[in-house]
Amino acid sequence: MTIADRMIQTSPSKGVIDATSLAACIAACFECAQACTACADACLGEHEVEMLVRCIRLNMDCADVCVAAGRVVSRQTAFDPVLARAIVESCATACKQCGDECARHAEHGMEHCRVCAESCRGCQNACIDLVAALAA
Amino acid sequence: MTIADRMIQTSPSKGVIDATSLAACIAACFECAQACTACADACLGEHEVEMLVRCIRLNMDCADVCVAAGRVVSRQTAFDPVLARAIVESCATACKQCGDECARHAEHGMEHCRVCAESCRGCQNACIDLVAALAA
Amino acid sequence: MTIADRMIQTSPSKGVIDATSLAACIAACFECAQACTACADACLGEHEVEMLVRCIRLNMDCADVCVAAGRVVSRQTAFDPVLARAIVESCATACKQCGDECARHAEHGMEHCRVCAESCRGCQNACIDLVAALAA
Amino acid sequence: MTIADRMIQTSPSKGVIDATSLAACIAACFECAQACTACADACLGEHEVEMLVRCIRLNMDCADVCVAAGRVVSRQTAFDPVLARAIVESCATACKQCGDECARHAEHGMEHCRVCAESCRGCQNACIDLVAALAA
Repeated sequence: MTIADRMIQTSPSKGVIDATSLAACIAACFECAQACTACADACLGEHEVEMLVRCIRLNMDCADVCVAAGRVVSRQTAFDPVLARAIVESCATACKQCGDECARHAEHGMEHCRVCAESCRGCQNACIDLVAALAA
Repeated sequence: MTIADRMIQTSPSKGVIDATSLAACIAACFECAQACTACADACLGEHEVEMLVRCIRLNMDCADVCVAAGRVVSRQTAFDPVLARAIVESCATACKQCGDECARHAEHGMEHCRVCAESCRGCQNACIDLVAALAA
Repeated sequence: MTIADRMIQTSPSKGVIDATSLAACIAACFECAQACTACADACLGEHEVEMLVRCIRLNMDCADVCVAAGRVVSRQTAFDPVLARAIVESCATACKQCGDECARHAEHGMEHCRVCAESCRGCQNACIDLVAALAA
Repeated sequence: MTIADRMIQTSPSKGVIDATSLAACIAACFECAQACTACADACLGEHEVEMLVRCIRLNMDCADVCVAAGRVVSRQTAFDPVLARAIVESCATACKQCGDECARHAEHGMEHCRVCAESCRGCQNACIDLVAALAA
């Protein structure tokens, strides 16, 4: 059991959202924030950095949005579904845009982009699942 | 002229968005991130903190979303309108939810909530204006 | 193998720091950022919130410092040991201050503070190890 | 009077630090976070991006540390001088490293680096002043 799971279980504020979807989304947002930060950096270290400008830019944006989403969904007290849905949906969009760009470079042998695209896809899906859980 | 204005003017990447709407949105996002961080803290220092739980929570969320939006709109290179619109719209939503809550406490004499509500309204409007400029 | 490990392995920028210490510090910083965000929220949801004001404040500070440290240590390209040491040392300090406060409340039955204190200790140690690896 | 000044004045938590040094440091940290984010982006849009790799990297680091420092110093409730000094000192270090690099590129005609270097110097000094005020 991760620290994030244990924080959900020990919180006095409960019940608004399905704990499994929530824990998955929290983990995915923090993982993707890290992956995108590291991918921007790895792209910046490549010889053909000028081919990776759009990738670096989307990595930086996606990292920022994932940090915000990960922090918002880590909070259960006085949960606001309108605000939560807005940031989680925008995180799914950021992950889609960044993941598509990374996937393009993965096809040309950029292995860090392959790993990052995988993390973006996972986070996009976790965000979509959480939005569905919020609507339920 | 602010540092943010000068950064826009000296950037080699130009022309996607109206510079006035852009500069206003950047300034508003960073100002509101600071105001919400300070308002969460001020609420936490009040005697009747249990009356301010929802306000603190929304302040923390809004600060996080404003930081992300402020950073994304500070970037002009390889600008992605889909991602930008998503985070700026979610920032307008966060500012609406937080500003409404702060306005409620302002009516009961919480002066820091009055200042924060003003900043949230300004940021909400600047985000709406930028989304309109993106669509134009 | 985690995404963070795979990002280190696929980066073109290598060799400055021991990869094991680095991966441990990255994971610990992001984990602790999440734990502190969640602990501030859990404290805010407790009945005796006025007893937990200092804990909430330190949780918010520690989360912010851990996000910054986690992002800086995720970058290997053009690594700057002076800047890296400064933020990683300040992260160890933030984790010490927050972990001590959480441990105090853990003794009085606050289970989320116990989990968070554990994460703070782990992150403090991972930061100290990374600073030692930087000096080596 | 800025929103940050008004937030300090309306906070119920007062007196630990000189309000003038505090307000200056808050403003400088948020300004520099924005400037460094925009400078990383402007550098990424330059033709000779490979000459600017170290600058982009330090810009990203400095932006992250400034956000953390700016948020920590925006909080007055249950103020912890040990944690505050640690993050503000590391912010001064980040601004020194980034400002030095930007100043180098400013000499070669990078106007965004000139503006960013100015903001880094201002933030470095504001952080040093605040640490002095904390020690007083």
